[in-house]
Amino acid sequence: MLNIGIIGAGRIGRVHTQSICNFVRGARVKTIADPLLSGESAAWAQSLGVAGTTKDYREILGDAEIGAVLICSPTDTHAAISLEAIAAGKHVFCEKPVDHDIGRIREVLEALAEERARHLKYMVGFNRRFDHNFRALRSAVEGGKIGKPELVRITSRDPAPPGADYAARSGGIFLDMTIHDFDMVRYLSGEEVTEVFAQPAVLVDPAIGEAGDFDSAVTTLRLESGALAVIDNCRRCVYGYDQRAEVFGSEGAAACGNDGASTVQLSSAGGVTGEKPLFFFLERYMQAYAAEIGEFLAAVEQNSPVPVSASDGLAAVRIGIAATKSAKEGRPVKLAEIA
Amino acid sequence: MLNIGIIGAGRIGRVHTQSICNFVRGARVKTIADPLLSGESAAWAQSLGVAGTTKDYREILGDAEIGAVLICSPTDTHAAISLEAIAAGKHVFCEKPVDHDIGRIREVLEALAEERARHLKYMVGFNRRFDHNFRALRSAVEGGKIGKPELVRITSRDPAPPGADYAARSGGIFLDMTIHDFDMVRYLSGEEVTEVFAQPAVLVDPAIGEAGDFDSAVTTLRLESGALAVIDNCRRCVYGYDQRAEVFGSEGAAACGNDGASTVQLSSAGGVTGEKPLFFFLERYMQAYAAEIGEFLAAVEQNSPVPVSASDGLAAVRIGIAATKSAKEGRPVKLAEIA
Amino acid sequence: MLNIGIIGAGRIGRVHTQSICNFVRGARVKTIADPLLSGESAAWAQSLGVAGTTKDYREILGDAEIGAVLICSPTDTHAAISLEAIAAGKHVFCEKPVDHDIGRIREVLEALAEERARHLKYMVGFNRRFDHNFRALRSAVEGGKIGKPELVRITSRDPAPPGADYAARSGGIFLDMTIHDFDMVRYLSGEEVTEVFAQPAVLVDPAIGEAGDFDSAVTTLRLESGALAVIDNCRRCVYGYDQRAEVFGSEGAAACGNDGASTVQLSSAGGVTGEKPLFFFLERYMQAYAAEIGEFLAAVEQNSPVPVSASDGLAAVRIGIAATKSAKEGRPVKLAEIA
Amino acid sequence: MLNIGIIGAGRIGRVHTQSICNFVRGARVKTIADPLLSGESAAWAQSLGVAGTTKDYREILGDAEIGAVLICSPTDTHAAISLEAIAAGKHVFCEKPVDHDIGRIREVLEALAEERARHLKYMVGFNRRFDHNFRALRSAVEGGKIGKPELVRITSRDPAPPGADYAARSGGIFLDMTIHDFDMVRYLSGEEVTEVFAQPAVLVDPAIGEAGDFDSAVTTLRLESGALAVIDNCRRCVYGYDQRAEVFGSEGAAACGNDGASTVQLSSAGGVTGEKPLFFFLERYMQAYAAEIGEFLAAVEQNSPVPVSASDGLAAVRIGIAATKSAKEGRPVKLAEIA
Repeated sequence: MLNIGIIGAGRIGRVHTQSICNFVRGARVKTIADPLLSGESAAWAQSLGVAGTTKDYREILGDAEIGAVLICSPTDTHAAISLEAIAAGKHVFCEKPVDHDIGRIREVLEALAEERARHLKYMVGFNRRFDHNFRALRSAVEGGKIGKPELVRITSRDPAPPGADYAARSGGIFLDMTIHDFDMVRYLSGEEVTEVFAQPAVLVDPAIGEAGDFDSAVTTLRLESGALAVIDNCRRCVYGYDQRAEVFGSEGAAACGNDGASTVQLSSAGGVTGEKPLFFFLERYMQAYAAEIGEFLAAVEQNSPVPVSASDGLAAVRIGIAATKSAKEGRPVKLAEIA
Repeated sequence: MLNIGIIGAGRIGRVHTQSICNFVRGARVKTIADPLLSGESAAWAQSLGVAGTTKDYREILGDAEIGAVLICSPTDTHAAISLEAIAAGKHVFCEKPVDHDIGRIREVLEALAEERARHLKYMVGFNRRFDHNFRALRSAVEGGKIGKPELVRITSRDPAPPGADYAARSGGIFLDMTIHDFDMVRYLSGEEVTEVFAQPAVLVDPAIGEAGDFDSAVTTLRLESGALAVIDNCRRCVYGYDQRAEVFGSEGAAACGNDGASTVQLSSAGGVTGEKPLFFFLERYMQAYAAEIGEFLAAVEQNSPVPVSASDGLAAVRIGIAATKSAKEGRPVKLAEIA
Repeated sequence: MLNIGIIGAGRIGRVHTQSICNFVRGARVKTIADPLLSGESAAWAQSLGVAGTTKDYREILGDAEIGAVLICSPTDTHAAISLEAIAAGKHVFCEKPVDHDIGRIREVLEALAEERARHLKYMVGFNRRFDHNFRALRSAVEGGKIGKPELVRITSRDPAPPGADYAARSGGIFLDMTIHDFDMVRYLSGEEVTEVFAQPAVLVDPAIGEAGDFDSAVTTLRLESGALAVIDNCRRCVYGYDQRAEVFGSEGAAACGNDGASTVQLSSAGGVTGEKPLFFFLERYMQAYAAEIGEFLAAVEQNSPVPVSASDGLAAVRIGIAATKSAKEGRPVKLAEIA
Repeated sequence: MLNIGIIGAGRIGRVHTQSICNFVRGARVKTIADPLLSGESAAWAQSLGVAGTTKDYREILGDAEIGAVLICSPTDTHAAISLEAIAAGKHVFCEKPVDHDIGRIREVLEALAEERARHLKYMVGFNRRFDHNFRALRSAVEGGKIGKPELVRITSRDPAPPGADYAARSGGIFLDMTIHDFDMVRYLSGEEVTEVFAQPAVLVDPAIGEAGDFDSAVTTLRLESGALAVIDNCRRCVYGYDQRAEVFGSEGAAACGNDGASTVQLSSAGGVTGEKPLFFFLERYMQAYAAEIGEFLAAVEQNSPVPVSASDGLAAVRIGIAATKSAKEGRPVKLAEIA
C-alpha cells in the first residue's frame, strides 16, 4: 500500500485526490497539505477517507510512511518543492509547468540525476496526453496510419478569459496556456521543435493587453524533420472548451474533435443542432486526470519509466519561452537561441 | 452508512459492486452472496474492500445490519428472492426482468403494497434509462423540443448472438432482449403501449430458430395517444453494439447515436473512417450502471420515489408477452389481451 | 436527334423539360401539351427553345417526328395515355404510378408485350433510384459490403401535408407517398416483397382522417429471402424533407442521410448547428430527375433495357394495395392475396 | 442575346463553355479561340452548339458582335489580352491571377479607369467565392452569427503535386495555389491583410524544392482589425481535395467541411466509413464555376458591379508576393512593403 501526500488542495489537487480514492487500489492518500486549508476542505478530505490534513507541506515531506507526493501548489512553488521532495526521497508528480525559468527546471533535472535520486520517479502533469481522443490520435500516427507526419494542427480555446491580474502573473499566454499545445505537438509528432513564430493578438480583453499579455495567438512551429505545426489559441470561446487536433501526413490525416455531453441531435425548423463541447478542462479531461495519476502510480509500483518526464516538462517550457520572445520581437525564434 | 448485500456475483453483480465501492459515499457493500462463489471471487471482493462473502443469500437477508439488497442472480430466482427480501424488510434493487410470469410479478407488487412494506424501495434495473444519450433524448422530449411525440424509433442490435441453449431458456428474444427497448419506448414517450405487432425472423443462426426463438425482429407498437413506435432488433451486429433512438414529433425530431472509443477520424485513400460503436453493454453502459445504483441508493437515503418501479417492470414484461404472442400468431395483439 | 413530346406542363413536366434542354445532347423537346396551357407556360417553353405547345396531347401522339413521350399528366390519365402512346409507336416515360388499378397496369403490360410494341421502351418514373445517395447505398449493398441484407430501414417524411381534398383523391398515403418507399425497398434489397403490415395513424391533420386517409404510418414488410423491411412515414416534418435509408446485413450496415444546402456548422452558446435537409423533392432530387431522363433517353438511343420497367411499376402498386388493405383490416396481408 | 468569345480551350475554358451552353439563357458562346485548337476541340465545340472556332483570339476581339470575352489562356498572357480586350471595348472575365507582376495588373486597372472603358465589366475568376459552402460561411459571418471575426482558418490541399517543371514556372506555391486562400481570407473576413508570415517546406517532392519552390506551407496573416488568419497548404493529399474553412469570433465559430459523392456511411468490423472529399477542383467546384459565370453575365446584362473586381485580383497577388518574400527571407512581411 503506497501512501501519498497531496500538496495543494485547490481545484486540481482535489481532482487527483478523488481519482486516487475512487479508482486506485494499492495506494491511498494519507495527507493533504494546503496553507489555506479550511474546515470545509478538511470535511471534504474526510468524506473521501483522507484522515490527515495540514497547513504545512513539510509534514508530508517529513513523513517516512509517505512514498509519493503530488505537487498541486501554485506554479512558482513547483521547483522549490520538487527539490525538497526529491531530497526527502519522495516520488514526485508535479503539475505543469515545473517552472517558467529554465535554470530552475535544470536544477530539478540535476537533482534527479544524483546517485541517491536515481530510483525516484518524477512525472510532469501534461494531462492531455491521457485524453482518449489525443491518445487515439497519437496511436494512429504511431501506427503509421497517416504515413510520415507533415503537419500538426491544434486548436485550443478556453471558454472564458482569466482576469488581467491572472494574465499578468501567469507567465503569459504561451507559458500558461499554449504550453499544453506545445507538449501536444511533441506528443503527436514524436519530434522536437526547432523554430517558433508566434503571431499574438489582444482581441478579447484590452486589460489583458495592458497587463502585457495576449489573449489570442497563432503559433507556427518547425519540427526537426522539417515538418510543420500550427496552433491557434483564444482565451474566450462562447461555445465551450474547444480542443481539437489533426495530424496530416504522406498517407492521410487523422483528426480528433471535441466531446459533448451526449450524441443527441435535435432537428427543428432552425437546423440540426448537437451538443456543444464539454465546458472546460474538468469536464473534458476528468477521465484523463484519473488515467494520468494511475499511470504515475503504476510507474512507481512497477519501477517503470514515467510517461511524461522532467525533460518533457523542460522541452515545453523552452518552446514557450521561444514563443514569448517571438511574439515580442516579431520574428521567428530558433530553439537553439533559448539556452 | 447504509450496508448493502449483493446477491449474485456474476458479471452484473460485479459491475454494481464496483460502482458502489468506487463512487458511492455513505454506503458500502457488506456481503456478496453467490452459490458458485470461488476463491477468485472472494479475492476480488476483498480487493474492493468487501469483507463478507457467502454462498447463501439468506445470510444477507438475515443480517439486520444490511438495509438494501441488489438481486443480480439468474432471472428465474428474481421474484422469489424479491419476496423473501421484502419480507425481511430490505430495500430491493432487482435486475430486469422481475419475472417472465405476470402472476409472479403481481405477487411482488402485492407484497410491496402491504402495510409493513410500504416504506420499502423496490427498483427494477432498466439501466438504459441512466445512459447519458437516452437521458438527453428524454430530456429533449420532456422539454417540449420536438412538440407532441408521434413516432419513437429504436435500433437495438447486439454484437454477437447467444448460443441456441441460451435462447431456449431466455424466455425468447422479446422478453430477453427487446424488453429493454419496450421500456425505452415507455421512457422516451412517457406513454403506455396499447398494441403490438412483432415481425420476427431467424436470419443469423438456424439453431436459434430450432430452439423455438428468433434472432431478428421488427416490432411496431401503438401508444395510448395514437402515436407509433418501431423497434428493430438483431442478435448479431459485426460493427458492435448498436443502440440508437429517435423521437419524431410535431415540432421536430431528436435522435441519439452510439458512443465510440474516441472522436478520431482517419482520412485516407479508402475514405473517412471513425470509431465503431463501443463493443457491448459493459462498455456502453458502464457509467449508466453507476448512475442507476447511485439513484437507487439516493432514493433509499432520501425516502424519495425510485426512478424505475416494479410497475415499470411489469409493464415491460406485459409488452414482451404481447410481442411473443404476436410473433407466434402472426397478428397484432392488444395489451388488453394480456391479463 | 430524337424528338420528344411532353404531356403535362405541371411541376414535374417542367422539371423534365428543363433537364432535357440543359443537359441532353442528341434529343430535343419538340412539343409540350397541356389542356390548361397558359400564355405564361408558352413563354416559358419558348425561353427554353421549345417551339411547339398545344392543349391536345394527341397532336404529340400523331406527330411522326416525335419518337418518345413523357407522360406527366394527372395520375388517372397515365394508363390511358400510355396505351394510346404505345399504339402510336412511341417510347414512353411515365410518371409514377402507372395507375392505382392493377387491371389497368396489366393492360399496359399486355400492350407492351404485343409484337408491334416489343421494340418500344417503357419506363416508370421512380426518381429516387437516381439519387446519388440511394445509388451509393444500392451500390454498397450490391457490392457485398454489408454481406447478406437482413433489414431495410427507410424514413420518408414530407415537409408539409397536402390538403384533405388531395388526400381523398390521391389513392391514400400508401399508393401516393409510401409507394416510393416500396420501390426503394425492392431497389435496395434486390428482392420481392411477400407480406405487408401497415400500422397507420392520423396524427397531423384530423381532416385527412375524415377524408378516409392517414397522415402517418409504420409499415413492416417481409421479403422473399425472409429478410425484413420497415418504413416510417409522416406527411409533415418541420425540419424539411427527411429521406434516409439503411440496409443492415450479415457483414455490416450502410446508411445514407439527407443532403443539406451546405456543410456549414455554426458553434455558438446554443449548440453546434448544421443545415436542415433540403426542403422538398424538387430541391433534393433535382439532379436525380436529370439523371433519370438521361437514362431513359440513353435506353431509347442504345436500345438497352430501361432501369425501371412497367413491371417495377406494377410491383410497387401491388405492395401499396396490400398495405392499404392491411391498414384497413388491421392484419398482415400477403402479396399473394393481391391478384 | 449577348455573344461571348472564349479565349483558351483548355480545361477551364471548356468548363465555362459548358456552363454557358447548359445553364445560361440570353447569352451564347459565338467563338472559341485557341492556338492549339485541334479537330477534337472543334468537334467538342460543335456538339455544344458553338459554331465558330479559331486559332487567333484577335478574331474574337475584332468581332463587333461579341460583347464579352472569357480569358482562359495561360497566366502569362492574361494581362496583355486583358488590355487588348478592354481596348476593343469588350467586357472581360479573366481567370486568376491577372498577372504575377503588380505593375502589369496596375496597367489593367488604369485601362479600366479610362473614360472610354468605364462602362466595361472586368471580373477575376476566384471561383471558390461561388462555392455553396464558402458562400454559406461568408453569409454566417456577414449575418453576425459569430460576432466579430477574430480568426480565419483555412485548410487547402491538392490531391496530387504538379511536376517540378510546372512548379518552376507557376510563380511559386503562394502565387499559384495559396492565392485562392488569400482571396478567401479577404472574402470570409471582409478585411484587408496587413502582414504575412509564410513558413514553407518541401516535404512531398524534392524536385519541387530543387526547382526553387515549396510543396507545403503554413501562412499566418494579420488583418487590418488586428484579427488573425492562418492557412495550411499541401500539394499532395491522398484522400482527395481538402478544402475547409472556419471563422472564429466573439460569438462563436462557423466552419465548412468538404463535399463527398454521397452521404453513405458504411459500418463494418473495421469502423464507420464515409466518402472521401470530392477528388479535385472540377468535381468540387463545378457548380461554383457555373454560378461564377452566371454572375458575370448578370453583371454585364444589368450593368451592376461584378462580384470579384480587378482590385480584388490585385490584392490577392500582393499578398502572394509578400508571402513569397516572407518565405525567402524568413521573416514577417508587411503588405506596405509591397509597392
